[in-house]
Amino acid sequence: MAPKKKKPVKSSQPELGFDASAPRQSKEVATERTSFSPVARRIRTESNIIRQKILLGDKPSMKFPVRSLANVSYNPKAGHFVLKGKKKERTLTVNTVKTFAQTLKMMSLSKELIETDDIATKREAYYVSKNWGDARFNEQPESDTVMEDVEAFFSVNREQLGFVPEEKGGDVAGRLMIIDHDRDTNEELHIDCTRFGSGSYSIPISVDALTFETDAQFILCIETAGMFQRLVKHNYWKSANCILISMGGVPTRACRRFVRRLADSHGLPVYVFVDGDPYGYSNIYRTLKVGSGNAAHLNEYFCVPQAHMLGITPQDIIDYQLPTHPLKEVDIKRANDALKNDPFVLHYRSWQIALEQMIKMGVRAEQQALAKHGLNYVIEEYLPQKLANVGRFLP
Amino acid sequence: MAPKKKKPVKSSQPELGFDASAPRQSKEVATERTSFSPVARRIRTESNIIRQKILLGDKPSMKFPVRSLANVSYNPKAGHFVLKGKKKERTLTVNTVKTFAQTLKMMSLSKELIETDDIATKREAYYVSKNWGDARFNEQPESDTVMEDVEAFFSVNREQLGFVPEEKGGDVAGRLMIIDHDRDTNEELHIDCTRFGSGSYSIPISVDALTFETDAQFILCIETAGMFQRLVKHNYWKSANCILISMGGVPTRACRRFVRRLADSHGLPVYVFVDGDPYGYSNIYRTLKVGSGNAAHLNEYFCVPQAHMLGITPQDIIDYQLPTHPLKEVDIKRANDALKNDPFVLHYRSWQIALEQMIKMGVRAEQQALAKHGLNYVIEEYLPQKLANVGRFLP
Repeated sequence: MAPKKKKPVKSSQPELGFDASAPRQSKEVATERTSFSPVARRIRTESNIIRQKILLGDKPSMKFPVRSLANVSYNPKAGHFVLKGKKKERTLTVNTVKTFAQTLKMMSLSKELIETDDIATKREAYYVSKNWGDARFNEQPESDTVMEDVEAFFSVNREQLGFVPEEKGGDVAGRLMIIDHDRDTNEELHIDCTRFGSGSYSIPISVDALTFETDAQFILCIETAGMFQRLVKHNYWKSANCILISMGGVPTRACRRFVRRLADSHGLPVYVFVDGDPYGYSNIYRTLKVGSGNAAHLNEYFCVPQAHMLGITPQDIIDYQLPTHPLKEVDIKRANDALKNDPFVLHYRSWQIALEQMIKMGVRAEQQALAKHGLNYVIEEYLPQKLANVGRFLP
Repeated sequence: MAPKKKKPVKSSQPELGFDASAPRQSKEVATERTSFSPVARRIRTESNIIRQKILLGDKPSMKFPVRSLANVSYNPKAGHFVLKGKKKERTLTVNTVKTFAQTLKMMSLSKELIETDDIATKREAYYVSKNWGDARFNEQPESDTVMEDVEAFFSVNREQLGFVPEEKGGDVAGRLMIIDHDRDTNEELHIDCTRFGSGSYSIPISVDALTFETDAQFILCIETAGMFQRLVKHNYWKSANCILISMGGVPTRACRRFVRRLADSHGLPVYVFVDGDPYGYSNIYRTLKVGSGNAAHLNEYFCVPQAHMLGITPQDIIDYQLPTHPLKEVDIKRANDALKNDPFVLHYRSWQIALEQMIKMGVRAEQQALAKHGLNYVIEEYLPQKLANVGRFLP
């Protein structure tokens, strides 16, 4: 691999002197995919600056945003956590030489991935480094950290650098045409999510190259695979004119990014249907809506600010006389933690009321509890009644 | 729900006197789906027998196969564990009246599911029982047990009774056309797995109604989503003329059933590509091939006897000079357990040699370790080399 990408850059204009006409295997792919190229250009620019400093006998350095909660604030307008701007500097010295070299090698790997329209998981990137001689990583957490540094350095998400998460997740059915491309022929592929029968479309690890056509009214994100399967089995998306998305628990990055891009592209509201318990609220819904605390530099891309909570709300448990389970200790702790520390919950009075109500009731209810009134009560009664009052959804 | 299904059966021929012309909502659906109807017929027959006994003043009883490892043997020819035939009898008495009633209600729910072409997860079935008056279940494990009794009673898999697992899992890409039906219009849906781009087909919870068209040479089952995504991204299925299936760890029931039905329908060999560690061998590969120990009455449907282990073998770690991790204590324990207790491993000398070799080497290697030689070494070198010698795959 390494030999392919070595391209000596000779120019009298270091900052701009990269070869913009360098051959790109993915040159002719669709517009969405070539939108990656600005990142490759920035990698060339930054590495050229470093190269020139070295040639001039200067000590090169790189500045990275500090990635910790201390450098983060909640922006209610943007709908997610944002970085405050604190930076750490890495200057090339005897002590930092290995990390510095690793950072440059990681940038170089990213450039190669972009230019060949390829991808690498964190784990693969770690193993690729085994061929970097003295710059190789000994443990994967080391290479993960450097990858995150590079990500934050360029203020882009990992997927734009060609790095993708290990895990997949998220299934789709309903009124949606997904447009992808065949890598070999560059043919446009129209993937019709109304024609999967009992099956569905599985969201790929990287979704930034996809585009969408839809006349749906909304997106419905569902916690459990079982409930998703019921709605798919009964073609619920037909009567409700919507797109169904199975999150299968806490949504993966790819799933969140997919929902976000889809919702943005057609101005669609996103309704979320989870178990009525603190895990469904705090871990699943909140992660989808505002992102997670320990990846604040990425939430911009992976949050879905247009999401609203359809149910199961604590009030639903009363209104629909649902069978319940008592709250476990971990549920109560989770709810109290959210009430005390979660900037999102602290921002919304209605969420505080809901969580306090649940703690007071001492019970939780699963999505499937609606089956007490008949297996398809959820389709025939619950969802239509709730959707008639979207204004009452939790924020 | 309940009122719909009550159909008083009046006949002088109790064993055969059910109304075979009873209206079935799903009457006109495809052949595969109506293949469920024999089960509905058997439910009617059995409940008629019980009803007649009660009317005659006799004590009705039901016989269930004992579901434990003590009632199981390994059948190398069939390729899975089989029941020995020990049975337990449940006679209607004062003590058993509640369980007896619950069993009949569960059979009735199953009959309704089949006749309306619907499904219920274990969890939904539990909640449906909340409307059964005194026969309602207090905890879900109780209803799960009764469901498994019914399953074993009729010697069919749960899916044929309309009961489906909670979890989904398994993605598909490559040279395969899946044929499903639109529930409303009964239109045949042709789902072309060569046209998903970077995405894939997500296997539904219940796969017994699907049929297949393919000219692929083999099925390749892959442990990790990341490796699957790499092979999909590079259209590996084109050059290798195969079908790619992502198991995402230990394969779900639906995934195993899908692979089995697909392999059976076209006589395809199944090759399995997992991490080179005892978990990949014992938990993932072995579960796919011969089923799991505690569901012996189901393995017939959920095992894939035609599966063979492509890699990563312990020998691959040496031959390909892969970067390794030391075996953890849990790995060594798992390997030793398999060598001592697993009837499958005890049957195959070559598996014993492989596990002993791994314990001796003291290391394991991940699928992604091949990236040491370049990200696409797996596509360009490893898989072609291995596939040129399928005779050497582990059994």
